[in-house]
Amino acid sequence: MGSTWGNNIKLSIFGESHGRAIGVVIDGLPAGIKLDLDYIDSEMKRRAPGRNKMSTPRKEGDKYEILSGYFNDRTTGTPLSSIIYNTNQRSRDYDAMKSIMRPSHADYTGHVRYSGFNDYRGGGHFSGRITAPLVFAGAIAKQILLNEGIVIGSHIKSIGNIEEDSFNMVDIDTSLLERLTKMELPVLNDTEGDQMKECILKAREDNDSVGGVVETAAINLPEGLGNPFFDTVESKLGHMLFSVPAVKGVEFGSGFDMASMKGSEANDELYICGDKVKTYSNNNGGVLGGITNGMPIIFRTAIKPTASIGKSQRTIDIATGGATEIEVDGRHDPCIVPRVVPVIEAVAAITLLDFMLERKARYE
Amino acid sequence: MGSTWGNNIKLSIFGESHGRAIGVVIDGLPAGIKLDLDYIDSEMKRRAPGRNKMSTPRKEGDKYEILSGYFNDRTTGTPLSSIIYNTNQRSRDYDAMKSIMRPSHADYTGHVRYSGFNDYRGGGHFSGRITAPLVFAGAIAKQILLNEGIVIGSHIKSIGNIEEDSFNMVDIDTSLLERLTKMELPVLNDTEGDQMKECILKAREDNDSVGGVVETAAINLPEGLGNPFFDTVESKLGHMLFSVPAVKGVEFGSGFDMASMKGSEANDELYICGDKVKTYSNNNGGVLGGITNGMPIIFRTAIKPTASIGKSQRTIDIATGGATEIEVDGRHDPCIVPRVVPVIEAVAAITLLDFMLERKARYE
Amino acid sequence: MGSTWGNNIKLSIFGESHGRAIGVVIDGLPAGIKLDLDYIDSEMKRRAPGRNKMSTPRKEGDKYEILSGYFNDRTTGTPLSSIIYNTNQRSRDYDAMKSIMRPSHADYTGHVRYSGFNDYRGGGHFSGRITAPLVFAGAIAKQILLNEGIVIGSHIKSIGNIEEDSFNMVDIDTSLLERLTKMELPVLNDTEGDQMKECILKAREDNDSVGGVVETAAINLPEGLGNPFFDTVESKLGHMLFSVPAVKGVEFGSGFDMASMKGSEANDELYICGDKVKTYSNNNGGVLGGITNGMPIIFRTAIKPTASIGKSQRTIDIATGGATEIEVDGRHDPCIVPRVVPVIEAVAAITLLDFMLERKARYE
Amino acid sequence: MGSTWGNNIKLSIFGESHGRAIGVVIDGLPAGIKLDLDYIDSEMKRRAPGRNKMSTPRKEGDKYEILSGYFNDRTTGTPLSSIIYNTNQRSRDYDAMKSIMRPSHADYTGHVRYSGFNDYRGGGHFSGRITAPLVFAGAIAKQILLNEGIVIGSHIKSIGNIEEDSFNMVDIDTSLLERLTKMELPVLNDTEGDQMKECILKAREDNDSVGGVVETAAINLPEGLGNPFFDTVESKLGHMLFSVPAVKGVEFGSGFDMASMKGSEANDELYICGDKVKTYSNNNGGVLGGITNGMPIIFRTAIKPTASIGKSQRTIDIATGGATEIEVDGRHDPCIVPRVVPVIEAVAAITLLDFMLERKARYE
Repeated sequence: MGSTWGNNIKLSIFGESHGRAIGVVIDGLPAGIKLDLDYIDSEMKRRAPGRNKMSTPRKEGDKYEILSGYFNDRTTGTPLSSIIYNTNQRSRDYDAMKSIMRPSHADYTGHVRYSGFNDYRGGGHFSGRITAPLVFAGAIAKQILLNEGIVIGSHIKSIGNIEEDSFNMVDIDTSLLERLTKMELPVLNDTEGDQMKECILKAREDNDSVGGVVETAAINLPEGLGNPFFDTVESKLGHMLFSVPAVKGVEFGSGFDMASMKGSEANDELYICGDKVKTYSNNNGGVLGGITNGMPIIFRTAIKPTASIGKSQRTIDIATGGATEIEVDGRHDPCIVPRVVPVIEAVAAITLLDFMLERKARYE
Repeated sequence: MGSTWGNNIKLSIFGESHGRAIGVVIDGLPAGIKLDLDYIDSEMKRRAPGRNKMSTPRKEGDKYEILSGYFNDRTTGTPLSSIIYNTNQRSRDYDAMKSIMRPSHADYTGHVRYSGFNDYRGGGHFSGRITAPLVFAGAIAKQILLNEGIVIGSHIKSIGNIEEDSFNMVDIDTSLLERLTKMELPVLNDTEGDQMKECILKAREDNDSVGGVVETAAINLPEGLGNPFFDTVESKLGHMLFSVPAVKGVEFGSGFDMASMKGSEANDELYICGDKVKTYSNNNGGVLGGITNGMPIIFRTAIKPTASIGKSQRTIDIATGGATEIEVDGRHDPCIVPRVVPVIEAVAAITLLDFMLERKARYE
Repeated sequence: MGSTWGNNIKLSIFGESHGRAIGVVIDGLPAGIKLDLDYIDSEMKRRAPGRNKMSTPRKEGDKYEILSGYFNDRTTGTPLSSIIYNTNQRSRDYDAMKSIMRPSHADYTGHVRYSGFNDYRGGGHFSGRITAPLVFAGAIAKQILLNEGIVIGSHIKSIGNIEEDSFNMVDIDTSLLERLTKMELPVLNDTEGDQMKECILKAREDNDSVGGVVETAAINLPEGLGNPFFDTVESKLGHMLFSVPAVKGVEFGSGFDMASMKGSEANDELYICGDKVKTYSNNNGGVLGGITNGMPIIFRTAIKPTASIGKSQRTIDIATGGATEIEVDGRHDPCIVPRVVPVIEAVAAITLLDFMLERKARYE
Repeated sequence: MGSTWGNNIKLSIFGESHGRAIGVVIDGLPAGIKLDLDYIDSEMKRRAPGRNKMSTPRKEGDKYEILSGYFNDRTTGTPLSSIIYNTNQRSRDYDAMKSIMRPSHADYTGHVRYSGFNDYRGGGHFSGRITAPLVFAGAIAKQILLNEGIVIGSHIKSIGNIEEDSFNMVDIDTSLLERLTKMELPVLNDTEGDQMKECILKAREDNDSVGGVVETAAINLPEGLGNPFFDTVESKLGHMLFSVPAVKGVEFGSGFDMASMKGSEANDELYICGDKVKTYSNNNGGVLGGITNGMPIIFRTAIKPTASIGKSQRTIDIATGGATEIEVDGRHDPCIVPRVVPVIEAVAAITLLDFMLERKARYE
């Protein structure tokens, strides 16, 4: 049981890829907020499949319906729930393959975890499709954060072996983050961006797939968010980021690179800048002792290559208990990274909103 | 507020480095367990300072006292609490420096978070010293897991720029992990181990510090642990690992390297081995869809260099609001990595025990 | 924020009386359970309005739709969600009255709590209608408990001033509880039952309403359920029971009467009965130290009279800030008690299932 | 596992009556609060045994020691922990009796729940002694609430068959509640108070015990506290109150009496009083729809007679599996009610503080 998350914002998600519907219940939203439905749509489109050649040609109707918690165009403060009906519920396509465990998918672990009763069609509850309601919730969180000036944005740091520069970790402005949001492949450098596209298209041609790294920034956060010992900013963001399918690594600030620095290189020296305290560098990624220091929060997320590939792979058939081979149907994303970007931003926004609400709860 | 963690095992930790005592309350432990006090001591010694030249010469009396939940040499099933009195509570040493914010420490963020009322002495609640009760709790968790054959162990993958081989991710045996536990500097290769020691001693000589990467394995776990969507094995381990002071990155299996692989390279193909399902490779680090697949769980943790260094650094004085410089007293660890290893294993053990207890709760 | 409940079973409910839909997400259900849909229907009918003259003539389509977590006629183990569309969403009826605060309703407190943005139509999120998804979830919990022989049932102990006998607290059998479930007005004695009906019909005639007391029993529970200090059986049942609209009191065993007994009268003496430990009396209602002792769990719930009455009452108009009077539309239940019975049993079943799952999680 | 409670304030309690120490960890306290240690002492004295002839002659050293979270006479905002060492840890007295289950105690249920490993001495974790740390935490909560003008107080509504008037539910002032706090036997009427004392002393003489009902009021609370659906004011107060040993019933406002009223009698009509909204009556006890309406919160708690009595009772010996008799040593309270009063107020204060903190977390 783990479909609920949060302290001040409480999120429940549910659904299977080919079940009746997927959805989310969001409790703890402030009352009286007029949702920007166009913005929600635009965020959901960033995640939707079928937008271009880099993604799967499958079309999914990610049309959400708000069932509760929204009245006269305002949040009511009671649970806001939203569902997306699945339009394609055909089981037949999957029955033939249901006992063949796709490598690097959750087929086998899901089978064991749920004693063979899990909905295997299209990955079921493990499908990336379940992230659509997360993006819905994240769009609302982002909108609320934006009212406080807090902006979250990302670029693709690498695809396969193509890597571009990092953010300038001490100085990121709103306009850059907003510009990235609108890009099909959000990158800082067009040259590397083009190479990444090629890399993805090449993988598609090869019936193969590629992964990548997403670098995300959240700016204009107040100092003092975070609740040691266990609910640090890094802990709670890490928790949520690792819930996103395909994420295999998370690092803050200079992350793994920081491990090979000397203290004299890594330490972020402080200075006064007007009425603010800043640091000259930001190797700690905006978080010290688990608490925000007002510098940009920077984190990187490692996304593994799409597990579904057309190449032949060795695996097992749990019906026979024997070895077999599988070539997974090619209508899959050769690279999931661009579609994961809005999901990462969504879970980051939900987490940071949770912290912002908690901060208000302090007596002062 | 974030000092409590867990679903089936509930942990509360408390204390400040120079307060009266630090401690932990552990609820949810099975009743009737005879604790191996020698083992607990040995784990706590791995974390204790002053053991050798690579660590701080400070001596701390990490003598714990069990206050409750243990009767006639058995756990009672009610909350087991344990405290460690702080023997050195002198405030004077810190008063002079209390307004000078040490770079890369939580001095400034703690000051903001707690409105200036935090105990600043020796890092207060942010001190690495608070991890001693965690190691105590972790030793109990490790002992319970060991009864089920589950073993957790680590080696130091890198210190500064010195890096050694990784574990063989598909085949790790108990004896290796136990041998590592007993090493002063747990490494797979003596050559690199010696270089790491030199690297640490050099940093001490230079009034500087170094960080590193710890690679941890947990073996013999049953398949099927983990609770998607939000409470996956990676999410909960990630949450706890990022609570450990100085951790700036966490990756599972091939982690960030996986992002540059092709699907055909990264996917872990399955096969039947006796009555078990195994994978030829283990790039997913024993976790698929957030659920264990029975292969070793492998993760790597990036540890930043010790923030306290003797070199002069620019910072601010919050009493005057002006710029100043600081040279942090040299009686600190030039490298915290060896002492962090048992803490990482402790939080991993607590997390995995939580999952093991949850697994039992399933109706089958 | 409080729409989520549970430790091992996690329940999220949402919806407003006249919104798009109401529903529930249930996480933590065992995988592989074939739901008895007829039984769920029968439970929901017990709560549904319009069944007889004792209830409101309003007809509501309590037709639920399962959206997830159920595949090939079995629970999958992932979140099971279910919604009920509201067929009557007309707002107009309520607009005229929206600023007139109905006495003893949540109109005013809801208005303040949600800063005026709550859905006021028909009570919105506070409507008794929201208990329909609870009954759905409770029916599933009851079915699972029944597989372990655990049965929950209730009779109406009193309506207005008409009171009947209590259960025999030491000896209640399954057939009695099942028989009560099938009764329109579940009582032990027909004479008092008839008087209760009259009392209700008289209240309707008078444009008034009456309340009552429900006495509930849960039998065949194992000994040893309950988690002191805070999560005792009484605490968690009390928590859930007080969430049910109109409940103003909860007592276990002899409850308030026990306060006027002497210890020598109240204490439940123990004896051995075959391989079981029993008590001669059951003033403690099956719970000692917050833990079940294997005797029937007995509790009584006080239900206040329906707040909506046709009689004229003094109140305020928050639009004008002035005094006014109100006669609430007569299409309401003159007595809500019979329809609350299945809700009480539902929350009891969910709570006890949560304890049963927790019990399994213990290492032994 | 249930020793942790709370959303915004998190409480962990631990300890056994005759173990090394009992204690509490409180997380989520605001930083910067100077504790009124004299007030804490006075609250703890209200609970302490041995004050007069109505209580046990046992003397317990309830001298607490603050271990963390308090620095320079102010709360730090990090977990505040406090322990009380048990001065009397002798085991011998209990060994002879350990297999004889005392009726109406948790001896048998604790034995089953913890597989025979519970600390049986003096009730162990089930001892009323564990409420001492609760009173400590409650005194802090009360002090913080008092800063907002919120006052909690109680009188003893009945002892055995002696019953006095209730509070005037619509109008209770601070001075009354504070006066009650200082009374040995807090009652509204001296005549009934004297009779209650006699009743208690008579029970002592008879080697018997009596119970009673405590009526508690919390005044000056803001409107709008409470989080439906599950975390209503009544639910969370009910949860905590039922955790207090010996509590067998809880009712709000007119409670069980409300069940026999007509709607026209029970409904609390509203009026405007200056800039406030009030109700003419307060049968709902200050809570509607689970949310405070600004009227006094009123609740009554049924306390069962002390289980330990000197009279001979039938019970079982789990060592032999046979029947036996027991006369419990007479050094026990003939009536626990006066000592439970501060415990009830403490858990109420903690609960209401939790709500007050949550209220601040709302975005407005």
